[in-house]
Amino acid sequence: MRIIKKGVIINILGFLLIIESVFMLFSAGISLFYGEGDTKGLLLATLVTSVVGVSLFFLSRNTDKNISKREAYIIVSLVWVIFSFFGSLPFIFTGSIHNYTDAFFETISGFTTTGSSILNDIESLPHGILFWRSITQWMGGMGIIVLSIAILPILGIGGMQLFIAEVPGPSPDKLHPRIRETAIRLWGIYIGFTLVEAILLWIGGMTLFDAVCHSFTTMATGGYSTKQASIAYWDSSFIQYVIILFMFLAGTNFTLSYFGLHLRFKKILEDEEFRWYLGFVVLFSVLIAISLIIFQGEALGISIREALFQVVSIITTTGFITADYLSWTPFLTIIIFILMFFGGSTGSTGGGMKIMRIVIVIKNGYYELRRLVHPNAVIPLKFKHHVVSPQILSNILAFFSIYVLIFGVSVIIMSTMEPSLDTAFSSVATTLGNIGPGLGAVGPMDNFYNLPVFGKWFLSSLMLIGRLELFTVLILFTPSFWKR
Amino acid sequence: MRIIKKGVIINILGFLLIIESVFMLFSAGISLFYGEGDTKGLLLATLVTSVVGVSLFFLSRNTDKNISKREAYIIVSLVWVIFSFFGSLPFIFTGSIHNYTDAFFETISGFTTTGSSILNDIESLPHGILFWRSITQWMGGMGIIVLSIAILPILGIGGMQLFIAEVPGPSPDKLHPRIRETAIRLWGIYIGFTLVEAILLWIGGMTLFDAVCHSFTTMATGGYSTKQASIAYWDSSFIQYVIILFMFLAGTNFTLSYFGLHLRFKKILEDEEFRWYLGFVVLFSVLIAISLIIFQGEALGISIREALFQVVSIITTTGFITADYLSWTPFLTIIIFILMFFGGSTGSTGGGMKIMRIVIVIKNGYYELRRLVHPNAVIPLKFKHHVVSPQILSNILAFFSIYVLIFGVSVIIMSTMEPSLDTAFSSVATTLGNIGPGLGAVGPMDNFYNLPVFGKWFLSSLMLIGRLELFTVLILFTPSFWKR
Repeated sequence: MRIIKKGVIINILGFLLIIESVFMLFSAGISLFYGEGDTKGLLLATLVTSVVGVSLFFLSRNTDKNISKREAYIIVSLVWVIFSFFGSLPFIFTGSIHNYTDAFFETISGFTTTGSSILNDIESLPHGILFWRSITQWMGGMGIIVLSIAILPILGIGGMQLFIAEVPGPSPDKLHPRIRETAIRLWGIYIGFTLVEAILLWIGGMTLFDAVCHSFTTMATGGYSTKQASIAYWDSSFIQYVIILFMFLAGTNFTLSYFGLHLRFKKILEDEEFRWYLGFVVLFSVLIAISLIIFQGEALGISIREALFQVVSIITTTGFITADYLSWTPFLTIIIFILMFFGGSTGSTGGGMKIMRIVIVIKNGYYELRRLVHPNAVIPLKFKHHVVSPQILSNILAFFSIYVLIFGVSVIIMSTMEPSLDTAFSSVATTLGNIGPGLGAVGPMDNFYNLPVFGKWFLSSLMLIGRLELFTVLILFTPSFWKR
Repeated sequence: MRIIKKGVIINILGFLLIIESVFMLFSAGISLFYGEGDTKGLLLATLVTSVVGVSLFFLSRNTDKNISKREAYIIVSLVWVIFSFFGSLPFIFTGSIHNYTDAFFETISGFTTTGSSILNDIESLPHGILFWRSITQWMGGMGIIVLSIAILPILGIGGMQLFIAEVPGPSPDKLHPRIRETAIRLWGIYIGFTLVEAILLWIGGMTLFDAVCHSFTTMATGGYSTKQASIAYWDSSFIQYVIILFMFLAGTNFTLSYFGLHLRFKKILEDEEFRWYLGFVVLFSVLIAISLIIFQGEALGISIREALFQVVSIITTTGFITADYLSWTPFLTIIIFILMFFGGSTGSTGGGMKIMRIVIVIKNGYYELRRLVHPNAVIPLKFKHHVVSPQILSNILAFFSIYVLIFGVSVIIMSTMEPSLDTAFSSVATTLGNIGPGLGAVGPMDNFYNLPVFGKWFLSSLMLIGRLELFTVLILFTPSFWKR
């Protein structure tokens, strides 16, 4: 195996840091407009980030444009960590968050589109910082689109190559042009949806600022809000339905939205993952709505809206809140907890295990029973009308089992710090799945502020591992990855 | 596919019912000896069971001795259900348990060697019934030895065929002689261990009756006790260490004990599953012992013994209790909960997922990372120095994922009846894993009496599904199993 090209890695990281600093500068502009005194801190963060970015970019050599898979793994993991490192500077320099652990937690929770927060008084923050906080998620979402649609399938991670044939763009044999083309097409949709949602939320009664921030964090399935009460702040069913719609779109494979915009609706309705995704949303919403009517005595309209909102918010791993689901009957709380493992569709900005993997794991269990009945018959598993190869199936089952194992070990680790079982369980589920709120002390009406320092760093690492589909990060810890 | 031979199935079930009635008669004898008034009820139950057994046996035709895999599936599932149906008659006829749901729950919890109880005042029961209750577990253990060592490997279930080459006995191509030979050899060990343990417990200070009952339920990894306080009743470290030893043996592959008795210790120490099993026991015991010393301020000796006892009791899925682990720090409670998924070794009487499967799932996760680094290399997974075939690996991964899926769905179902999260989670984990006690309202100092009727039937079915390694029961619900 050949040497890792450090020059290329540094060069790309430098380039991306420059982009990050541009977004910081933009936040500084917003801050200047509102004139709230956070401008200086934001400009300082921009300066530091851009100087480091420019230095890395120009001092490194990038003569060889062809990066290999190994470099791709290193770059992907490093980008999220380094972005979070520099991204936390605005919080520190403006004095919005007082210690580095909290600032890093809040930032990586942004870039990984998780949305778990340590802030106790969000409304007290200046507009520039609130804007930066929202835009970390939007950038994270952009990164994830490229990652899940263009990079992970080529790296062969977790069955992501299953839908590669469906992705619009040039043939998948060359990494560079494919990333470029695919990114441009799908980012167009991402930006377009963000724009439309912002306008609708503005019409619905949000200020333009809140509308933009929330559409950023909706499309990223991030869930950061500019209000402590999240979406419950606006007592508007129009706003809630707009956000339900766009959370649902953000949790849908963006290539399907591409087909939708080209009026190829048949392709959407025939898509197996989409049908399951829609099916799960309807199933769990109906289940919760009926329970809310029977057990909580809620009205029909409110029940349907609250059920839909919470189910779509959790299954897409957004994490916006309109109701305190911890006050619901335990049965509903458990459903919310189980939903934390689902996640959005592949090729969406959603986290979690992803609908495709859940479905293939369920199908495989059923097929294994059929294989036992007919031990000599070859019964291949099909998904989206294609046979799932043994390699991909093995990778998906490994993904599922590693997810469960990491969950189990992490719960043990969190329980050393956290006395209540539901807090320990759900803090792991919600960060590993990049959702945001959990149960117990990290429930929808609380946040992660009171966790000990080690717990915050540990959960930060879970956000990263979950966001990068486990393998991308874990592979860096295998000796064979580093062997020549 | 050919027709299912109903005659053979009925014939075998009749034969087994006759055996069950013999054990009932034996319990009636014990009852007669103590002269406590439960003799009549036990004799009536014996009569009903034997009449049904004899009728089925003689009225059915069993001309064709070769049963196929399909008949084997049906027989195995039916045996446990029918044994539990008739096995609950002694509780009903003697008035020891007042409603049929509770009696069935107590009995299937016996035959599946689970040990979850609905009894609130065990000591008030007459000796004959206590003996019957213990012996249901011992019979269940006997059944499991045959099942896991002789039948399941041939059916190809959950990777059980992995250690078939290791099993002493004739070659595995013929079902009938193999079951016979293997059963006789390993039952010999089972009975021998039971005898030795009973003598040791008697020496340790138990009455002969208690000693026999507890050695029945230890070797079956069942966990029924004749005392409400379980093993904590005897304040004797000798008794506790004897039970630790025999729980450990019962959770060890019985073929290894066979080698041990033939002084082939090298074969035991080289056995990969045994090394992991021992490793897990040591690891978790040390972890818990240290925590007990630091956080609970316990003495060294007591900490080691309590840690060892609870770890061995839960990991082997026995479920005896000497300490209220719910009063420990949450961290330790979570470890106990996670241990509920481990289970004993393959070829033992322990339930759960089994050490072999846990290890292979972990290994496969790691190997998948290596496969990603070297996508073109063939990296086969080895266990016990043998390559695990793709079919077996697929079956084990399917087992793991089905176990997790059943767990998730069952927790949702239990949460409709059970307000506390830890009760919902642990009642499923402890019945599916055939352990016995759980957390919360079904913790070590409580029992399953207060659950609603539907909950008891639901958990009963989980005991059955878990005990029969999932597939054996689930396969009966696939349409292709019944198609000609």
